[in-house]
Amino acid sequence: MWRVFFTSAIVAVVVRTAMGWCKDGNCGHFGAGGFIIWDISGGQEDYSFEELLPMAVIGVIGGLLGALFNQLTLYMTHWRRSYLHKKGIRVKIIEACLISVITSAISFGLPLFRRCTPCPEADANSGIECPQAPGMFGNYVNFYCQNNKEYNDLATIFFNTQDDAIRNLFSAKTAHEFSAQSLLTFLVMFYTLAVVTFGTAVPAGQFVPGIMIGSTYGRLVGMFVVSFYKKLNIEEGTYALLGAASFLGGSMRMTVSLCVIMVEITNNLKLLPLIMLVLLISKAVGDAFNEGLYEEQAGLRAIPLLESRPKYQMRYMTAKEACGNQNVVYFPRVVKVADIVSILRSNDHNGFPVVDHARSGETLVIGLILRSHLLVLLQSKVDFQHSPLPCDSRGDLLPIRHNLSEFVKPVSSKGISLHDIHFTPDDLEMYIDLAPFLNPSPYVVPEDMSLTKVYNLFRQLGLRHLLVVPRPARVIGMITRKDLILEDNDDPTAVELQSTSVRGTQSNHRVITRKGDAQQPLLDGLL
Amino acid sequence: MWRVFFTSAIVAVVVRTAMGWCKDGNCGHFGAGGFIIWDISGGQEDYSFEELLPMAVIGVIGGLLGALFNQLTLYMTHWRRSYLHKKGIRVKIIEACLISVITSAISFGLPLFRRCTPCPEADANSGIECPQAPGMFGNYVNFYCQNNKEYNDLATIFFNTQDDAIRNLFSAKTAHEFSAQSLLTFLVMFYTLAVVTFGTAVPAGQFVPGIMIGSTYGRLVGMFVVSFYKKLNIEEGTYALLGAASFLGGSMRMTVSLCVIMVEITNNLKLLPLIMLVLLISKAVGDAFNEGLYEEQAGLRAIPLLESRPKYQMRYMTAKEACGNQNVVYFPRVVKVADIVSILRSNDHNGFPVVDHARSGETLVIGLILRSHLLVLLQSKVDFQHSPLPCDSRGDLLPIRHNLSEFVKPVSSKGISLHDIHFTPDDLEMYIDLAPFLNPSPYVVPEDMSLTKVYNLFRQLGLRHLLVVPRPARVIGMITRKDLILEDNDDPTAVELQSTSVRGTQSNHRVITRKGDAQQPLLDGLL
Repeated sequence: MWRVFFTSAIVAVVVRTAMGWCKDGNCGHFGAGGFIIWDISGGQEDYSFEELLPMAVIGVIGGLLGALFNQLTLYMTHWRRSYLHKKGIRVKIIEACLISVITSAISFGLPLFRRCTPCPEADANSGIECPQAPGMFGNYVNFYCQNNKEYNDLATIFFNTQDDAIRNLFSAKTAHEFSAQSLLTFLVMFYTLAVVTFGTAVPAGQFVPGIMIGSTYGRLVGMFVVSFYKKLNIEEGTYALLGAASFLGGSMRMTVSLCVIMVEITNNLKLLPLIMLVLLISKAVGDAFNEGLYEEQAGLRAIPLLESRPKYQMRYMTAKEACGNQNVVYFPRVVKVADIVSILRSNDHNGFPVVDHARSGETLVIGLILRSHLLVLLQSKVDFQHSPLPCDSRGDLLPIRHNLSEFVKPVSSKGISLHDIHFTPDDLEMYIDLAPFLNPSPYVVPEDMSLTKVYNLFRQLGLRHLLVVPRPARVIGMITRKDLILEDNDDPTAVELQSTSVRGTQSNHRVITRKGDAQQPLLDGLL
Repeated sequence: MWRVFFTSAIVAVVVRTAMGWCKDGNCGHFGAGGFIIWDISGGQEDYSFEELLPMAVIGVIGGLLGALFNQLTLYMTHWRRSYLHKKGIRVKIIEACLISVITSAISFGLPLFRRCTPCPEADANSGIECPQAPGMFGNYVNFYCQNNKEYNDLATIFFNTQDDAIRNLFSAKTAHEFSAQSLLTFLVMFYTLAVVTFGTAVPAGQFVPGIMIGSTYGRLVGMFVVSFYKKLNIEEGTYALLGAASFLGGSMRMTVSLCVIMVEITNNLKLLPLIMLVLLISKAVGDAFNEGLYEEQAGLRAIPLLESRPKYQMRYMTAKEACGNQNVVYFPRVVKVADIVSILRSNDHNGFPVVDHARSGETLVIGLILRSHLLVLLQSKVDFQHSPLPCDSRGDLLPIRHNLSEFVKPVSSKGISLHDIHFTPDDLEMYIDLAPFLNPSPYVVPEDMSLTKVYNLFRQLGLRHLLVVPRPARVIGMITRKDLILEDNDDPTAVELQSTSVRGTQSNHRVITRKGDAQQPLLDGLL
């Protein structure tokens, strides 16, 4: 956090200084925005009590449109995944091209059917020239309007960079710039395009389109409010901003973060309470229908996202009941390669407890090994050994033949599959000592711990596997917070030596565990 | 979070509406500030590269003064706790009165020695009249200045509400209002007073004084900058703001939250990057000397605060090593009152594992009971029973004779002490069945789990006790995230029934645990 904070501060200062050099627009589109992309601080100063009702209406609309958006995109994505994208990459490309063609056709064609609007009489303090000089983009786009005192309001939104379009929608002191008709046309078109585009093979954001949609109907509502409360000094731009917030809230269901973002990009703290209210209303309305955009999509991809709170009935369930009935598959500490292969083939578990025999003879769970790590070991056969004995019992310390990078799954790939690994008959006859590669101390819970607690454990620590063990027979010790506050010891090597010296005196599985622990810097990131 | 967010939104809107009624100052001091207490949005528009150096200087000063402040207050508090406040309440009162007298004497007396300053020529767009009309507080306080065109700059800071004083220090377009001499005098005086006042028996905040101190030396630096870079349009107020941020960062060591606060109360987003930089510098400088104000004080009171990250050497330590050597004190499930008393007297543990004999005969840890809860049970003797048998084995279900409130420690009190409870000889001969009152499923860790993991467990779940148990002999099951995603079941009663029906079929200690679990809504808040 510290580092991120510092970096962003540096970035902010540097970029700001750099942008000072292109104040006079000789950097083209860059330099226009800055960090406060859509500065509406010059807009509505104050709001009156009567305005809260239309603002609430905006919130409701946002919730409805947002929920609808989530549902439609969900269906689209489902259909794509199950039919379209099965047909291979070529189809994906064709689809993307097709959509882009349609989009450009619409955004170029529709404004042509729109009649030009005469410019409003020049307003000194607004500082927005009409029409915009050709070549320059921005407000009051003169789109094939013969008369030099006219502009095309639909083109002002459509035929523009989205940043500029949003700036136009947010812009204050431009009442009656857009006709309700144009806004409605744009809203319908853009909404449909956004739904269709979402989930294509093109990496496209969801944020700016959301703001576009929201600010459009926001401004629509604003127009009616302006014409309704004539005496009040109301800006349509304010309502466009609230609309944007409401749609994002209705589809993404974020509250606090969105608030901060909206305030940061518009630089008007006075509107913060309104943004908060609108966000909450839209989120509440949206939640009545479905989950947030990201949750829906994650659910479609079967990504097990844990909500922030456990379900109520978990109170009455135990960890054991959650395990399901499929029984646990163990690995012995030193295992034959053939056995690993057959076990991995026989099930689809991702984690396996490893058991070992202590000196006293009873078996002990010495750790947890992940399927992915086993596959790495099988692929790079360096750890295969001929003897079924644990390597440290043969005296030689465990040599680390691997480095972390081998165990990290490459982002682009799906990881190693068992089918890709080929074994000679000799390989299958060899053994692997799993001890150095397992997670020596996985988190465990007693079998009858209430599932709410298990849930919190998972959620807070971001676990992926949890071992459910029998209720303990005895307690070795209790740890309290005081035990965890060590006096500063700036010489960790000393501690290490002392702990290594301890190792010798410990029973077999302890030795391994300690090795495993000392080795955790290697695997910690993965376990 | 949701609720807090909603509430604050409502509050913001309502208060804003209410304050609309006292715009014309007929609410006295209230209504002046609003949420944006010190609005400097009219101040410095832009900052140039050269200014970064003096700003860094401010950060360094803030770090030094903040660290010094923490150290001095630490000594003061230590001295108070060990000598002064031992002498009883009367001393505390006298001390508080004494300090308040000194404070008022200084803040009234010092300005008297200060010569009056002629008002600057009236500036239309600054909108600050000089001197302030008598009766009205604010800027340019005319403090016993005969001439009606003069003001007393020291009184403008001292003889004012702290809010107004800060507003004056932050105020833009008032260059050269304060003389370096006055600022320095105020800084020294106020810093000393703040150190002395901190930790008296008076509930006083640390935030506004911090802003006062910081903005004073900030403005001092600003004066020199203004006189140094004459050509640049620089406001002393900006530097006062940065100074405030730097001192708070240097003493409290907060970064992000402070940033948000400073921006919110000053409503100038453009300065955010500068505030971030200054905060980071001051925090870094301060961290070189000591810990933050709150950490120091918490350490003095021996409150075991866990830092966000475990110490490095914890990698090489196991949970067992952290337990310390004092051995665990058990309770049997049904225990004689006399035994409870003697055990509680014999040690100062706050949590005790409870063991019970399963049907099979071996002992099992059935939960953890807290000292505070035991004391509650001893005080309200309703659960005492004559027979040493567990109550459910006598067929009757465990009656809940308590409600949550009994187990909650009253905030004002230090909790029940064993000495306050009086037992008749008969009481001591009776028994208590602890099963209904224990935490049936405390978190457990295997004895050789690396201490870093234990640390994270404590920190993430906010635990107070953790049972260290032997390495498990077998694994009953594995839980993965998928197991924790239940399909919506809107009829928890059904689940409850089903789980109760399960109970009958389970072994003795399971039954109790299930009761305990089902009962957790009663004690969950406390465990």
